[in-house]
Amino acid sequence: MEPIKEKGKFTNSETKVPHTGDLGGSVKVHSPGTVANLVCGFDILGMALKEPYDIMELTLIDEPKVIIHNKDNFNLPTEPEKNVAGVVLLSIIESMDNKIGFEIIIDKHIKPGSGIGSSAASAAGAAVAANHLLGNIFSSDEVAQFAMNGEKLASGVKHADNIAPCILGGVSLIRSIHPLDIIPLSSPDLFVTIVHPQIEVRTSDARQILRQQVLLKDAIKQWGNIAGLVTGFLKNDVDLIGRSLEDVIIEPVRSILIPGFDEVKNKCKEAGALGGGISGSGPSMFMLSKDKKTAEAVETVMKEVYERIGIDYNTYVTTINKKGVEIMS
Amino acid sequence: MEPIKEKGKFTNSETKVPHTGDLGGSVKVHSPGTVANLVCGFDILGMALKEPYDIMELTLIDEPKVIIHNKDNFNLPTEPEKNVAGVVLLSIIESMDNKIGFEIIIDKHIKPGSGIGSSAASAAGAAVAANHLLGNIFSSDEVAQFAMNGEKLASGVKHADNIAPCILGGVSLIRSIHPLDIIPLSSPDLFVTIVHPQIEVRTSDARQILRQQVLLKDAIKQWGNIAGLVTGFLKNDVDLIGRSLEDVIIEPVRSILIPGFDEVKNKCKEAGALGGGISGSGPSMFMLSKDKKTAEAVETVMKEVYERIGIDYNTYVTTINKKGVEIMS
Repeated sequence: MEPIKEKGKFTNSETKVPHTGDLGGSVKVHSPGTVANLVCGFDILGMALKEPYDIMELTLIDEPKVIIHNKDNFNLPTEPEKNVAGVVLLSIIESMDNKIGFEIIIDKHIKPGSGIGSSAASAAGAAVAANHLLGNIFSSDEVAQFAMNGEKLASGVKHADNIAPCILGGVSLIRSIHPLDIIPLSSPDLFVTIVHPQIEVRTSDARQILRQQVLLKDAIKQWGNIAGLVTGFLKNDVDLIGRSLEDVIIEPVRSILIPGFDEVKNKCKEAGALGGGISGSGPSMFMLSKDKKTAEAVETVMKEVYERIGIDYNTYVTTINKKGVEIMS
Repeated sequence: MEPIKEKGKFTNSETKVPHTGDLGGSVKVHSPGTVANLVCGFDILGMALKEPYDIMELTLIDEPKVIIHNKDNFNLPTEPEKNVAGVVLLSIIESMDNKIGFEIIIDKHIKPGSGIGSSAASAAGAAVAANHLLGNIFSSDEVAQFAMNGEKLASGVKHADNIAPCILGGVSLIRSIHPLDIIPLSSPDLFVTIVHPQIEVRTSDARQILRQQVLLKDAIKQWGNIAGLVTGFLKNDVDLIGRSLEDVIIEPVRSILIPGFDEVKNKCKEAGALGGGISGSGPSMFMLSKDKKTAEAVETVMKEVYERIGIDYNTYVTTINKKGVEIMS
């Protein structure tokens, strides 16, 4: 396997030296939103977004505790063991034999429950920032493992399809969780339009509604599309990406939780989108487009539908974030 | 979609001009064996082999009929409508308004029923040879469509996971059959060891034994591996290919039809093979290796098992064929 490393954010775990006496200071990071599943790639594919992103400032302290300050208005818990970033930092402190601690200021811009990786941004951002302050002693796989503790708190399941692209940027394939096998895929320069209808879809409900058994013929159709989508990303073949963005297993079930889903999807494709679907477990939807003009036309369509239905919404027109969590200072 | 063309074997269908008056003569082709499914890629992936291959000589005649001569000892039918190459040629004759016919000499080296694409070699070889004699008036997708008539005769199902790599060489992804969407993947320079235990596994039985429903969690594991395998081929990452060669859905069911399967597989991996499994619907098995020495050690293991069990067998140590059906003269 190719080592998953980039831009000096990570080092090899074999070089781990907990020389915390030399370390200290603060770091500010931008931690991006992510789209998990990518239509046919349920549980195995995810993609990072240029916007929105959370801003986090992490400071190393010499007491084994986590102090959390929320700068936003989302009223997230400040008790570390109830906070996604908190549990990630606690797990890192424990791995360092409780010789360090962290103080964190979180300015969240990715609305919790939106389906575009709000918890992953907290978890991955905290893990990457902590690793930076510790001299990048952890490999990216280890950073992902720490961050997955946050996902476990948020959704009850250790999954990496938001965490991996959040850390690495671009599109990530999670071939396997046990053992963790994250493979970065190249990603084309596509535009992404997101709409977040302001309704609540609990991840646990979205998971519960799925059938435990699927038809073999549907599974075959799905894995043809997954293979096509991955090939499209790696060959930069946007038409193949478009043809492959079809989900015959998850979307037909989950989309009933999202008012206006079919109408939005059909009209977005009529407006020129390559394709798209539910972001993560919803309620956000995403659409990929070849150019900004189309991505904006898609946004207009999304707005029109939710204006008419009468559901509040947010929209974003953005691109694929190729950097992942970014160290700002 | 990238147009699937190579080496002047095909032309664009838009240039089709049935100027048969100018055409004629004979052509000799080598049509290779193929491994379909590729473990996790059931129904969507296939790979061409350097050896074995069939040799076919096709001559254009001016009567709308097909004359078949079998040079081998397999006793295959010579009535065109009962012969795999025959039905393919009949469908081509029909598409040419019955203005032409073919005489074909078939020297088959790929044993029928072996699971390494014997029928596909007949079907694809005949279709490519006929297209050559007709001035390459058909696109590769059209050639594949003609050849699929042969697969329909052989197995009752129009499938392209042997046909496509037989025509194109290398590894092919069949994203979809309706509409036909064949995507050529790059393939690394790997060695392939094949063992054909001389037992009969009917394709229809091998299909009937499969469960119609699969667990969603198994399907997810499978599509993670398919995505990993495709990524491994496209990135030339042989370790990723090895890790991804795992099938949790088809192999556990079908392998019970192949005596010695588990032992062969485990011992081949101990001998250094990257991985492998059932070729097509069996009974042949294939293993991929990084180098010839390992591929030969794998062959020794295969021989030892079937010697001990007391089942006749053939083995091949070969490579991935990157050309597909080859025009020899």
